[in-house]
Amino acid sequence: MSTLNGQTIGFIGLGLMGRHMARNLKAAGADLIIHNRSQGIIGELVAEGMTAAATPVDVAASADTVILMLPDTPAVETVLRGMLGGLRPGTLVIDMGTTKVTATRGFAADVEVAGGVYIDAPVSGGTIGAEGGTLTIMAGGADAAIKRAQPIFDVLGQKTTHVGPVGTGQVAKAANQVIVGLNIGAVAEALVLAKKAGADPARVRAALGGGFADSRILEVHGQRMIDGAFAPGGKCTTQRKDMDQALELAGELGFEMPATALSRDLYDTLIEAGHGDLDHSALIKAIDPD
Amino acid sequence: MSTLNGQTIGFIGLGLMGRHMARNLKAAGADLIIHNRSQGIIGELVAEGMTAAATPVDVAASADTVILMLPDTPAVETVLRGMLGGLRPGTLVIDMGTTKVTATRGFAADVEVAGGVYIDAPVSGGTIGAEGGTLTIMAGGADAAIKRAQPIFDVLGQKTTHVGPVGTGQVAKAANQVIVGLNIGAVAEALVLAKKAGADPARVRAALGGGFADSRILEVHGQRMIDGAFAPGGKCTTQRKDMDQALELAGELGFEMPATALSRDLYDTLIEAGHGDLDHSALIKAIDPD
Repeated sequence: MSTLNGQTIGFIGLGLMGRHMARNLKAAGADLIIHNRSQGIIGELVAEGMTAAATPVDVAASADTVILMLPDTPAVETVLRGMLGGLRPGTLVIDMGTTKVTATRGFAADVEVAGGVYIDAPVSGGTIGAEGGTLTIMAGGADAAIKRAQPIFDVLGQKTTHVGPVGTGQVAKAANQVIVGLNIGAVAEALVLAKKAGADPARVRAALGGGFADSRILEVHGQRMIDGAFAPGGKCTTQRKDMDQALELAGELGFEMPATALSRDLYDTLIEAGHGDLDHSALIKAIDPD
Repeated sequence: MSTLNGQTIGFIGLGLMGRHMARNLKAAGADLIIHNRSQGIIGELVAEGMTAAATPVDVAASADTVILMLPDTPAVETVLRGMLGGLRPGTLVIDMGTTKVTATRGFAADVEVAGGVYIDAPVSGGTIGAEGGTLTIMAGGADAAIKRAQPIFDVLGQKTTHVGPVGTGQVAKAANQVIVGLNIGAVAEALVLAKKAGADPARVRAALGGGFADSRILEVHGQRMIDGAFAPGGKCTTQRKDMDQALELAGELGFEMPATALSRDLYDTLIEAGHGDLDHSALIKAIDPD
């Protein structure tokens, strides 16, 4: 792959996923200008041939495209505030983290006022997808902007859907997280019922495969529940944050999501019990503490 | 197919699924002795070469195997009560409906005392699966009994899992229905969120395909929600009955299923609003009545 030859890409946020994404972009031929709050990873990536920038504004000063892969909405806000003054006309800013929808629309407006172009393109697929370049990308933005970003998305993911205008990528990600969290709860209640009613949960899971109860969650997270293997994957704290964001959005829009609210409360209970760093499939402990 | 040549199979309960299952057994070479509460379908099936029996005990008098495909637990109890006196030693009774777990264990004991053998083998796959012989079968019973029934299961379904002893087939079916109902609720909340937040739900569904939010429910019932196409499929009233049975079982076992209880309440609301005969994917109306 050398489809990004000659492009200079800024990358801010080099956590467990971001570092792999930056490496894949470099392997595809791009020059990488990187910035991260904690410095440990920076040295490693500079040794691999990337260029470190001291501040977000320094990233913006030399990159055609700046990718943000940050942990939460306040982090995106801080970085953008630092960067906007130095943004060159036409710079493409792509937020690939999971950021609040309403805030995203505000960020996009700020970037446009500063002369840039904004895309929200959150992903699913975790560190495995980031490393393998097999992420699922949900993109919101103008047609021309998405077209411009497509070679980058093709390197990072195996599937990109242009959902609609700015913000709709984050809407799709919120919908994704609602389904993931609630289906984990569904599989948890079903497997606890199976066990307590005298059936082998592993056989029940096998029996359900291929039918209407089948899902990626039954397959992957159901197996984690059966094995009691709760190394994350996606943490309970992250799942709760995503449920909170979905509920906050529903509140702004004036409607209720009762199952999502219940699930958030179950995650609260789990986190209060000290399980916040376990995989989100550990929700089964809220149904069956034994 | 003529794998059932020489077998005489009794079939009680010739509703939308049962009639197709009986036809598939006949096509595979079995002689069918049939009984049904309402008589309309009987004439049709007799014209196709099946033999009508006036009562369940008449079915039991001449069949090696008796299959029950009845709408609920009281119907199974009534039929078994009528049949037990005339059961011949070694008759195999297979309940393929969705029946309560604790009652199932009692029915199996009664049949064994009467000299028969009992299997619970509920199915998923609906009328399409019944007609095509592609049901998913979840079987509970002794090894020898399941082995004896296997040629019948091979005609009716594309996959049979022997979950465990008597009752565990019904446990697996309860788990199946819990996941189906709760995942319908998950997809409903997610798609309403998408719509109200300004994204096209069809694009969001497409964006989520292949990721962790993907499932048969997102695929099939998600599309029904997007189309507003609520011809059943599985009715809301049936889904509520199945959720009630799962909750009753959890109550007997002394634990709580909070998400299942919430979903049952949402189905209650929907049924009270007059939507009981719609497909269970109509749950989305409880989240977004517009």
